[in-house]
Amino acid sequence: MRIGILGTGHVGKALAAAWARAGHDVVIGSRRPDDRELLTELRELTAAGVRIDGSAGAAAHADVLVNATPGTASVALLTTIGAPALAGKVILDVGVGFLEDGTLSHPLVSLGEEIQRAFPEAHVVKTLCTIDRKVMVAPDSLEGPATVFLSGEDAAAKKTVRGLVTDLGWSDDALIDLGGIATARGQEHFALLFIGIAEATGTYEFGVRVVLPTGGGSGLDH
Amino acid sequence: MRIGILGTGHVGKALAAAWARAGHDVVIGSRRPDDRELLTELRELTAAGVRIDGSAGAAAHADVLVNATPGTASVALLTTIGAPALAGKVILDVGVGFLEDGTLSHPLVSLGEEIQRAFPEAHVVKTLCTIDRKVMVAPDSLEGPATVFLSGEDAAAKKTVRGLVTDLGWSDDALIDLGGIATARGQEHFALLFIGIAEATGTYEFGVRVVLPTGGGSGLDH
Repeated sequence: MRIGILGTGHVGKALAAAWARAGHDVVIGSRRPDDRELLTELRELTAAGVRIDGSAGAAAHADVLVNATPGTASVALLTTIGAPALAGKVILDVGVGFLEDGTLSHPLVSLGEEIQRAFPEAHVVKTLCTIDRKVMVAPDSLEGPATVFLSGEDAAAKKTVRGLVTDLGWSDDALIDLGGIATARGQEHFALLFIGIAEATGTYEFGVRVVLPTGGGSGLDH
Repeated sequence: MRIGILGTGHVGKALAAAWARAGHDVVIGSRRPDDRELLTELRELTAAGVRIDGSAGAAAHADVLVNATPGTASVALLTTIGAPALAGKVILDVGVGFLEDGTLSHPLVSLGEEIQRAFPEAHVVKTLCTIDRKVMVAPDSLEGPATVFLSGEDAAAKKTVRGLVTDLGWSDDALIDLGGIATARGQEHFALLFIGIAEATGTYEFGVRVVLPTGGGSGLDH
């Protein structure tokens, strides 16, 4: 699959390496694709076959465009690429925006919804934002199975993203489809509990597992 | 232990029954303690030794006062009891406030913090708000161990609350102490993901388990 990744931080790099390893055709998009320091920093990735291009070039390449930019900057960056270039594409959004005081930059909605609203012809799928980038690409590094969530409007786009998440090593039954893109709120707001758990346990490298009732539990009407 | 419970809804009743069963001296506080319908509704509890009183009476009785009222109404109700009557008491806060549109009533902070700020001489401990009332009192109903969180400023109060949570059947190592009362934000905002998981799985009766890295993981500086 042709994957474009926006964001050259830890998350973008980890995902690029993992998906290239899984045989995908990966282009990382940067606002400064010719920057010498960036090229040095990414040389392991380019040695593994990942290419570097501008943001628009990565988007043009992509069947699936991954948003791994800081959540505070994501919509502005996608706007420079433009709605026509994003129409019909799957946007796999892992971003969460934080303000300097540690609160969420989208406290009343979610970044995922904001991207979907700004680019209504793209198919936004929110996922992977409840775990650290090391765990994202190494689910077996945990003491037991954890859960990954999906939110998005388009069933075909979610199926594509589900496949890409399993290519990172997650088993298909580790994924819970929460529903439409509005459910991205739950995934993003979990960031506050994530930080609390990280402070308490001393590591970002954990997951959470949804533990279901033995007998299936009562239905939602009870 | 002398426990006062504010709130005669499903959560208050479940906790009252479980703590009475564990041998505690429980008084439920209501704004209408003589209401005949309420007394009928609570007759199983009163048969089990739980007493009904006004909100102020339940607070006066309590070493630990449990806030199981709707989060939108909690501060106003506690204000009718008054800061002097709450000074020095442990307030075990399980409340989460929702507005009619399904968003949190305290989206930028948390109810736990708001109660602590309103009653600085009380010792607020936020806990149990990430699980359904049935799971609260029956952790063994789940397919495996789940996690419960604690947030609060006062170490002694957290120790007391930890004991009361284990009296509900939770093992001590199921509890993660997140830190100060500001970390209640993470617990309360999890409500959004909780609702998404409930819709996806068809039941409220689940927990989440924090799954740690096999090797302990990198520290937070990495």
